[in-house]
Amino acid sequence: MPYVNIKITKEGLTPEKKSALIKGVTELLHNLLGKNPQTTVIIIDEVDTDNWGIGGETVTDRRKKEI
Amino acid sequence: MPYVNIKITKEGLTPEKKSALIKGVTELLHNLLGKNPQTTVIIIDEVDTDNWGIGGETVTDRRKKEI
Amino acid sequence: MPYVNIKITKEGLTPEKKSALIKGVTELLHNLLGKNPQTTVIIIDEVDTDNWGIGGETVTDRRKKEI
Amino acid sequence: MPYVNIKITKEGLTPEKKSALIKGVTELLHNLLGKNPQTTVIIIDEVDTDNWGIGGETVTDRRKKEI
Amino acid sequence: MPYVNIKITKEGLTPEKKSALIKGVTELLHNLLGKNPQTTVIIIDEVDTDNWGIGGETVTDRRKKEI
Amino acid sequence: MPYVNIKITKEGLTPEKKSALIKGVTELLHNLLGKNPQTTVIIIDEVDTDNWGIGGETVTDRRKKEI
Repeated sequence: MPYVNIKITKEGLTPEKKSALIKGVTELLHNLLGKNPQTTVIIIDEVDTDNWGIGGETVTDRRKKEI
Repeated sequence: MPYVNIKITKEGLTPEKKSALIKGVTELLHNLLGKNPQTTVIIIDEVDTDNWGIGGETVTDRRKKEI
Repeated sequence: MPYVNIKITKEGLTPEKKSALIKGVTELLHNLLGKNPQTTVIIIDEVDTDNWGIGGETVTDRRKKEI
Repeated sequence: MPYVNIKITKEGLTPEKKSALIKGVTELLHNLLGKNPQTTVIIIDEVDTDNWGIGGETVTDRRKKEI
Repeated sequence: MPYVNIKITKEGLTPEKKSALIKGVTELLHNLLGKNPQTTVIIIDEVDTDNWGIGGETVTDRRKKEI
Repeated sequence: MPYVNIKITKEGLTPEKKSALIKGVTELLHNLLGKNPQTTVIIIDEVDTDNWGIGGETVTDRRKKEI
């Protein structure tokens, strides 16, 4: 009956990747902790790079410096 | 002073339904627990069916099978 | 398949009140939005009054002033 | 290593304001609690006024009354 | 730079199991999405069975019926 | 009307520090974004170091290596 929320930067994650991520986390919780896959809920939030900060600046600003 | 976060799949919830949901949850917290409606905050997140997983697969994939 | 997170201050909510709250929110989501109660997940977080702030101060500090 | 989630109503916050907010919160956590800015993560969620409730009604409805 | 929040019922999860869960989810995000493990943050919330509702009742109440 | 959730590792944060953090974040949101302090809600979650993962391991395990 676990609930999992995954937040990642919004960068074109395909539906196939999302399916694989949901399948993988669900299996991990089943294999490691014996949790029932049927009641495992996973929600993916894709966050704009302007809205994600790390090291005191937005990911948008960090990426500009990397170029 | 409660804070409530409601996550549902994104499927065309009307503003009227959202208003009714917010009113209903606020009243429930007032009637059951005596919480002050004026400081009760409710946030509704509408989540894409590609981003919601249950039973190891996305809601999008589950719905396809149901048809 | 909704997911609801309710945060309230930690002040001795009884198991009976928690049961009533969970029942009430689940029924509301079913009645208003047609959501399936069997897959409606509700998590209650009870938060210490030292850790809850409103109006720029903790609830602990606000309560002291009210006396 | 703090994680901060800031939810505000969606009302045209500029990238510059977002940068300033992320910088400010990160510095505050460093100055007050000695937290390392390099591992401080901040996520801003901008919420539609239809989806934010306070006082038993949506912010959209409250704003209409204020006019 | 993903952020993951895992909520499970509080039932004596050992530190070893928590370590394995954190390791597994971090690797999954690296292998599937190429995310950097060094900036992957995972927070596990263990929730009292009185505070977790599904199907309109608490997990505590459901477990009693199962016996 | 912002809502802010701050998660930090549980390491003996005093009530005074919590008050200062809540005051500081509330003022920042007022000064930068013009948000009303009276409706700014801030919740601090203190997380056990066993339950916080970064870099694929728990903070508890990382701290042991640092010694």
